[in-house]
Amino acid sequence: MNRPEHSSRLIPIPDVQSEHDDRHLAIDQVGIRGLKHPLLFADGGARPQPTVAQCSLYVALPAEQKGTHMSRLVALVEERAAASTPLTVVNFRTLVDEMVARLGAPAGSIELQFPFFVRKTAPVSGVASLLDYDVTLKGELADGRYTETLRVAVPVMSLCPCSKEISDYGAHNQRSLITLTVRTHAPIALAELLRFAEEEASAELYGLLKRADEKYITEYAYDHPRFVEDLVRGVAGRLAAEPRVAAFAVEAENFESIHNHSAYARIARGL
Amino acid sequence: MNRPEHSSRLIPIPDVQSEHDDRHLAIDQVGIRGLKHPLLFADGGARPQPTVAQCSLYVALPAEQKGTHMSRLVALVEERAAASTPLTVVNFRTLVDEMVARLGAPAGSIELQFPFFVRKTAPVSGVASLLDYDVTLKGELADGRYTETLRVAVPVMSLCPCSKEISDYGAHNQRSLITLTVRTHAPIALAELLRFAEEEASAELYGLLKRADEKYITEYAYDHPRFVEDLVRGVAGRLAAEPRVAAFAVEAENFESIHNHSAYARIARGL
Amino acid sequence: MNRPEHSSRLIPIPDVQSEHDDRHLAIDQVGIRGLKHPLLFADGGARPQPTVAQCSLYVALPAEQKGTHMSRLVALVEERAAASTPLTVVNFRTLVDEMVARLGAPAGSIELQFPFFVRKTAPVSGVASLLDYDVTLKGELADGRYTETLRVAVPVMSLCPCSKEISDYGAHNQRSLITLTVRTHAPIALAELLRFAEEEASAELYGLLKRADEKYITEYAYDHPRFVEDLVRGVAGRLAAEPRVAAFAVEAENFESIHNHSAYARIARGL
Amino acid sequence: MNRPEHSSRLIPIPDVQSEHDDRHLAIDQVGIRGLKHPLLFADGGARPQPTVAQCSLYVALPAEQKGTHMSRLVALVEERAAASTPLTVVNFRTLVDEMVARLGAPAGSIELQFPFFVRKTAPVSGVASLLDYDVTLKGELADGRYTETLRVAVPVMSLCPCSKEISDYGAHNQRSLITLTVRTHAPIALAELLRFAEEEASAELYGLLKRADEKYITEYAYDHPRFVEDLVRGVAGRLAAEPRVAAFAVEAENFESIHNHSAYARIARGL
Repeated sequence: MNRPEHSSRLIPIPDVQSEHDDRHLAIDQVGIRGLKHPLLFADGGARPQPTVAQCSLYVALPAEQKGTHMSRLVALVEERAAASTPLTVVNFRTLVDEMVARLGAPAGSIELQFPFFVRKTAPVSGVASLLDYDVTLKGELADGRYTETLRVAVPVMSLCPCSKEISDYGAHNQRSLITLTVRTHAPIALAELLRFAEEEASAELYGLLKRADEKYITEYAYDHPRFVEDLVRGVAGRLAAEPRVAAFAVEAENFESIHNHSAYARIARGL
Repeated sequence: MNRPEHSSRLIPIPDVQSEHDDRHLAIDQVGIRGLKHPLLFADGGARPQPTVAQCSLYVALPAEQKGTHMSRLVALVEERAAASTPLTVVNFRTLVDEMVARLGAPAGSIELQFPFFVRKTAPVSGVASLLDYDVTLKGELADGRYTETLRVAVPVMSLCPCSKEISDYGAHNQRSLITLTVRTHAPIALAELLRFAEEEASAELYGLLKRADEKYITEYAYDHPRFVEDLVRGVAGRLAAEPRVAAFAVEAENFESIHNHSAYARIARGL
Repeated sequence: MNRPEHSSRLIPIPDVQSEHDDRHLAIDQVGIRGLKHPLLFADGGARPQPTVAQCSLYVALPAEQKGTHMSRLVALVEERAAASTPLTVVNFRTLVDEMVARLGAPAGSIELQFPFFVRKTAPVSGVASLLDYDVTLKGELADGRYTETLRVAVPVMSLCPCSKEISDYGAHNQRSLITLTVRTHAPIALAELLRFAEEEASAELYGLLKRADEKYITEYAYDHPRFVEDLVRGVAGRLAAEPRVAAFAVEAENFESIHNHSAYARIARGL
Repeated sequence: MNRPEHSSRLIPIPDVQSEHDDRHLAIDQVGIRGLKHPLLFADGGARPQPTVAQCSLYVALPAEQKGTHMSRLVALVEERAAASTPLTVVNFRTLVDEMVARLGAPAGSIELQFPFFVRKTAPVSGVASLLDYDVTLKGELADGRYTETLRVAVPVMSLCPCSKEISDYGAHNQRSLITLTVRTHAPIALAELLRFAEEEASAELYGLLKRADEKYITEYAYDHPRFVEDLVRGVAGRLAAEPRVAAFAVEAENFESIHNHSAYARIARGL
């Protein structure tokens, strides 16, 4: 699937990908998907953190070109990961620019998905621990216009307002996943963005909790019941009021503790 | 998460979902996701086949309404599955209509994902066996307009033209997945649609093959090398020429046998 | 990967699998994995239900034999699924016997994994709906001895006793999965087996619930707090007291609503 | 789910987990599962590499004790990850020892699963790139005896000897996964262990290949056809001859390019 820039052999190897294609069909996206690679990522001004990313790199291919040069896409990931500067939401664009330039492509996009960790402090005991969030960073260059989309999936607790209201005691609750997808006018740190979700949930999650924390969170959640509808409305209201956010989608999925299926809701503005 | 139409108790239970919400935020989609249910599906004029579907049902929720009535969505699936007529791509619309009507919703969508089986005959020995295809049926009603999208993921073999061309013998090949997503002017049977992918691949797959079949397929694939780019171009050309197809997207993913990542390509027209 | 019993061609095709292997290494298991196939399954005396199974079929291979005949394993699944009698935990053995006989193998095993549905009635409203359970049926024949293992994964609710005890109100709860793996002296219906898990949980789950049911379940769960330790102890106690059960393992996984990880426990006796 | 060693409040919070349980049922394993955490791992004498692990930590619980202290397990992961010395297959035992000591447990086990990367050099062009391997490290302490199990899943290419033999040209091939699980008398580096699988396959995989490499690998694979049976026999022979290996299991799964299911084989000695 590869075409070397310089053949390492005396007898030339045919370059099938560079041949002509006469079907008159341009390809929107062609490239590699699911390449796992270690990566150094820095969020806002925070200390860089090593992580492992699933990388997808695609370019547009003109109608007359038979194939793209997949190996250049892998080489690009290798080089970027070897560089000393960590990847950020700000310098991510240069990677997309570089790809499109090297491949001589009319357009292209890169998508990196990786676990992102935030050190959190338990609400009463103050013990610290990491919580993991699934992040997807997508940069797209088309018609000379660059679009970057940032996605973070935030695990939270939701407690059912109906269950609380109709029951003499207790209320069913469960783990939920709130996913924020945003395009921005100005950079927002992931650590800031995910707080929109945590603050609008019935309660936020922690890796490590002491008993006093568990009491606090249990009561806090009971005091903050939220339907799946409330989760997306709460976060959507926050994102709509944030001047740095240009467009967004908010999704929430409740892994219902009384059913074997999920409750789900979504609000999108401009995405 | 539920509100019964008629309370089964003398003391009325509060209906929290029907309360007023004053955040002025309409919800694009709210409902249930990941409900597993057995289902009878009939493709074109073929004999109905029992399968198991993952069901997602969503409605739009006006800004002033606090919550939707999730239990009605589950009830709808139960009733449909209990009906004697199998589900088809033609009668699917009535299910979406019924949902939107029952929920009094301005819009709504249903997505059903299920394994679909086709009995295939091995090319030389003629032995028959089933092959499984992952199908997703999506119906959406918005502004009085109904849109149905049909997706089928077709496992095939791809053999690399570059590897064949540059090597003195052999050629690397692998399993690939070609995914067709279409909107139609007139119904197309799934069994017809998936042939577009199988006929454009290096070779099609079978559950059961005898040695004579294996020889045939090995040589056939070697005679029909296809890049991931060729797969999507071949299928896109077929779909573009098919008058019943209104819009489409074709994706191909090669689970490369020489790498631990995939090659991927996509062509979309109108989707 | 196949060797036909009768070649369909005049010129004989070499049978590589039947050649001699001189590495003196017997193979414990060789066969096919992940074959998807529709299947009719009947639980105890209940009406047969169509489902879709993931099938794995393996045989032992003597040291001197180069390869097995994979296509015979696929053919066996095709034939069994085409038969009019539904598969049961009782007649499953004949399928394993048949496989070992046809392949002339010293030993073999079959594993079928499929969604299994039970119609449940909501506790107050009495509305009926299906709930899905993941079932794995494994039959193994070795040294003339047949062993059958039945596994069912039961989704339930667990409510934390510590959270309830230490909090002034409320208690965190979540969906849990209790997995029962059993070997029996005499057949037990799946529908009976999974009740052990549902009755020992804080609450059982339903597809469809009305508000009166939701109130009932919420309060019931609050009245029946269970640690992950309690779940496995409760079920283990029931299985240990059941004369038809010869050996068992019980696992429970709580998808904690206050953490982004699970709590897990396991008790095994004889497995 | 937690019990703090020292309550951070004046009014004592009940310690439910430390209460007495009178069901007389000891628990084999209880703890946490699926905790994601960044980790520094060093293989043999190689430079430490940052990765992200899925962590499971379990202890045995005596019959009379109601519950374990889950938060101590999370704290242990936090502390270990914060330490400056990277984790190795040699010092892993101290983590298991520490867990069992801190929890006052009669037995316990830790399982860490993480992507592990090896820099590989393409066979002709010499270009370097990383390849990812899924590694699972399991340490178990019971009855004062420590057992460590190392598992590495190695993606390779397999080319079907039957297809090659019976076909006039070409041979179907595909990506395969060879999984080695070993217990050792003396430490073996992962980078050494996975070579057993790569050297016994039809060909090994690379992240980055130039055209000359692709030609080399295509022809190499054609010259080294391997059944799934050959893969496990080849690796089993190597492991059986390796004095540092005390017990092993080898599994191979071929994601067949002519079927939509896998071929699978397994040889175990002492596991």
